[in-house]
Amino acid sequence: MAKQAQTAITPTREEDYPEWYQQVVKAADLAETSPVRGCMVIKPWGYAIWENIQSDLDRRFKETGHKNAYFPLFIPMSFLQKEADHVEGFAKECAVVTHSRLEADEDGKLQPAGQLEEPLIVRPTSETIIGELFSKWVQSYRDLPLLINQWANVVRWEMRTRLFLRTAEFLWQEGHTVHATKEEAIEETRKMLDVYANFAENIMAVPVITGEKTEAERFPGADATFAIEAMMQDRKALQAGTSHFLGQNFAKSSNIKYLSSEGKEEFAWTTSWGVSTRLVGGLIMTHSDDDGLVLPPRVAPSHVVIIPVTPKEETRDEVIAYCRELEQQLKDQYYMDGRVRVEFDDRDIRGGEKAWGWIKKGIPLRVEVGPRDMAKDSVFVGRRDRAPKDKQSYAREAFVTGIATLLDEMQAGLLAKAKAFRKAHTKEITSEAEFVEFFTPKNKNNPEIHGGFASMGFCCDSELEDQIAKKYKVTVRCIPNATVNEEVPCVFTGKPGKRVIFAKSY
Amino acid sequence: MAKQAQTAITPTREEDYPEWYQQVVKAADLAETSPVRGCMVIKPWGYAIWENIQSDLDRRFKETGHKNAYFPLFIPMSFLQKEADHVEGFAKECAVVTHSRLEADEDGKLQPAGQLEEPLIVRPTSETIIGELFSKWVQSYRDLPLLINQWANVVRWEMRTRLFLRTAEFLWQEGHTVHATKEEAIEETRKMLDVYANFAENIMAVPVITGEKTEAERFPGADATFAIEAMMQDRKALQAGTSHFLGQNFAKSSNIKYLSSEGKEEFAWTTSWGVSTRLVGGLIMTHSDDDGLVLPPRVAPSHVVIIPVTPKEETRDEVIAYCRELEQQLKDQYYMDGRVRVEFDDRDIRGGEKAWGWIKKGIPLRVEVGPRDMAKDSVFVGRRDRAPKDKQSYAREAFVTGIATLLDEMQAGLLAKAKAFRKAHTKEITSEAEFVEFFTPKNKNNPEIHGGFASMGFCCDSELEDQIAKKYKVTVRCIPNATVNEEVPCVFTGKPGKRVIFAKSY
Repeated sequence: MAKQAQTAITPTREEDYPEWYQQVVKAADLAETSPVRGCMVIKPWGYAIWENIQSDLDRRFKETGHKNAYFPLFIPMSFLQKEADHVEGFAKECAVVTHSRLEADEDGKLQPAGQLEEPLIVRPTSETIIGELFSKWVQSYRDLPLLINQWANVVRWEMRTRLFLRTAEFLWQEGHTVHATKEEAIEETRKMLDVYANFAENIMAVPVITGEKTEAERFPGADATFAIEAMMQDRKALQAGTSHFLGQNFAKSSNIKYLSSEGKEEFAWTTSWGVSTRLVGGLIMTHSDDDGLVLPPRVAPSHVVIIPVTPKEETRDEVIAYCRELEQQLKDQYYMDGRVRVEFDDRDIRGGEKAWGWIKKGIPLRVEVGPRDMAKDSVFVGRRDRAPKDKQSYAREAFVTGIATLLDEMQAGLLAKAKAFRKAHTKEITSEAEFVEFFTPKNKNNPEIHGGFASMGFCCDSELEDQIAKKYKVTVRCIPNATVNEEVPCVFTGKPGKRVIFAKSY
Repeated sequence: MAKQAQTAITPTREEDYPEWYQQVVKAADLAETSPVRGCMVIKPWGYAIWENIQSDLDRRFKETGHKNAYFPLFIPMSFLQKEADHVEGFAKECAVVTHSRLEADEDGKLQPAGQLEEPLIVRPTSETIIGELFSKWVQSYRDLPLLINQWANVVRWEMRTRLFLRTAEFLWQEGHTVHATKEEAIEETRKMLDVYANFAENIMAVPVITGEKTEAERFPGADATFAIEAMMQDRKALQAGTSHFLGQNFAKSSNIKYLSSEGKEEFAWTTSWGVSTRLVGGLIMTHSDDDGLVLPPRVAPSHVVIIPVTPKEETRDEVIAYCRELEQQLKDQYYMDGRVRVEFDDRDIRGGEKAWGWIKKGIPLRVEVGPRDMAKDSVFVGRRDRAPKDKQSYAREAFVTGIATLLDEMQAGLLAKAKAFRKAHTKEITSEAEFVEFFTPKNKNNPEIHGGFASMGFCCDSELEDQIAKKYKVTVRCIPNATVNEEVPCVFTGKPGKRVIFAKSY
């Protein structure tokens, strides 16, 4: 085998996908593990991506009539117990607070003291505590719909964790809404799923399939769960957001009732929906390459880095001054609803090291300016969506005034590429043999990489789904909304079925 | 005694200040207690104030070179123990996680299970866990200064809680920085104190005194603590933000070392600084009156509410259409770095109830438009900083184009009023008798209300300070920066002293 060209990240995606992911996160300085098992530290470059995700989603939530609020971190143990499926789903992995102070024992060692009357659970999700409060907030039909969102941290004591994708503590938002009718609650559930899908595609450049989950994958306590599902570059599915129609389950367990306009007391209908820092993991795995992180401009912490090239001491000040002026000109340009975000890198390290550092961090544009560029009033530009050496000279002014267009061209390119990738690895499956073949890894050294998304008929029998999951490690990701009315015979049983997407998943 | 005019809030400030505070919070629908002892629920109107505080402060932190990051919610018990003063300060009131799941016992009752090897503390503040990580991030002088901020929730198991002012869980930001030299760390400590002071005065219209704390009031583990102190309307002081010079204490306990440019290994110098949702409490108590919340426009969730007045069915549609156009015109106006925020209230309830609802919520401007106003192309405006009935007619266009100026005039007025109040209740104290008299309540039914801030000489002896605190419930709030070099004889001992502010405090 011919030796491949060297890449900034070792191993490559082909060689070892899970390890490649860890190395991309590390090389871009996005996050790291902490001394607290399963809890990650989100470093500034990673947190800035999350802030961009937050601010755009927050605007979308507010535009659809939701208001932010904040509820307690702790949930009394008895609350979790109110909804039978819910406690079943979350009791196995929660952080339990049992004491309210520390006291030194005889040897001077600290020990938990001040035992609480009732243990408190660190919220794994907030349906039960928010339900309790909503039962007081909602009295009459005039109080409905109640449309609330919370940005918060939650804890689920996961055994096997992975930065961003699955961590014990993670950051998220959880929407919680109350409605007078079933129809309105279902409409809300679908509306927020669409908000997520639009956000994923337009801001993160991550194409997603929207659809309903089968019973086996439903949120504990929900009547129906909808999700957005994205394809990663190892062709596995990542569930990137969920929207739940909770029926009257939580309304009944939390006693959320309202007086209708006819004066009748009725149980309300509720929904909940959330996305988390997992989105950052999905972003990384959708776009990054063997040289490190690739960021769509719309979520990039910075859009462009200016790197002054100063080979000679005598022209150094002049080049720096020219670059500073360029920095200001770029910062005066608008991109989306803000300004172009610019880094200025005049650190005293080798130029190659500097450029590769930014490539690994995924900054969309690198602008190098040396004495010769300055003489021509031009800039030398590297695009993160092209090969590292494929750089291009632009007249300074044209680059400055065209930067927003260039960034959106890159944004569109990333989305198109991800869509083409998904299309290339989605296959219509019509027999079990074909199914098995599709999910068999072709590269024995890298069992992560297999066929991709199988679009096929399935009878949606839960027991059968469970057997398939155990046998093949493949699950139904969703019943896509786009083809929900199609009737397709089940590949396994021949019975009438729905069109579903089967895939391996995170 | 003549019966006072009726007010929207009962009791008034004069009658019962603490209860007035609770009623203002309730009437404005800012927050409420939760089923979890000491943990509050921040409701949408209250949370929107916090969001405005956050976004302005966040911009100031970024402009001064800080980057946001996120660290674990949990701190291993052993970490807290590393700094002796620190553990002493926080061990008495912390939430201790001891188990990782729940299991049903023989009776089907849930019980904590899966005991952790080492208990985890829900962060009361993050110096120890962040210090551990910084010890890895900082290797060389090139890594310094390290300027990090975190927006997070923290928990301190307070016994006596009060919405916003003192709650078991609260939201805050904590800045954590590392520097190569003592001088740089002290400069950072002072710089961030100034950021807080400028923010409090310019955005919250809360005048503050900046100064250093005496030893007795220092942060556990700090070499020096600085604070901003504001006067509430009961004349008590509220510590609204702190900035700590941590010396090398945490650098030594967490082993934060760097290689200097001369190749020598040195311990670094650290700082930390924070403000919390307590600021919202300070905001309420600075500006509100006996009709409820008063909000400075720069932190108000909304600036103006439009209330269509539709006495006759036949002109209703026309008035609504006129008001909707006005709404759009107002939303097109800029205020500060955004747009004017507008509410539209066409709820089907009585006009008086509607207007009073908005007065109690503290919205700066109420605009009523009825058929007669419309005929004159004018609007009828109530300002929250004037009496409820003191309303004024404006030509519509003049009101629209002048709204930003009007809002800033109101903002300036609130600051001036708060400054005048503080001035009126600050007194130069020269004897112990005068001191006692100053802090003796004049209204026996309302012992909260007393003299205010005592500006006076004090020898700063910790034992004496402790005695005074016990005897009079009065403490040194700070040694003001403005007069730090003044030498004033101690009022109690006659010894050489510093000029300090003594006050009762929250």
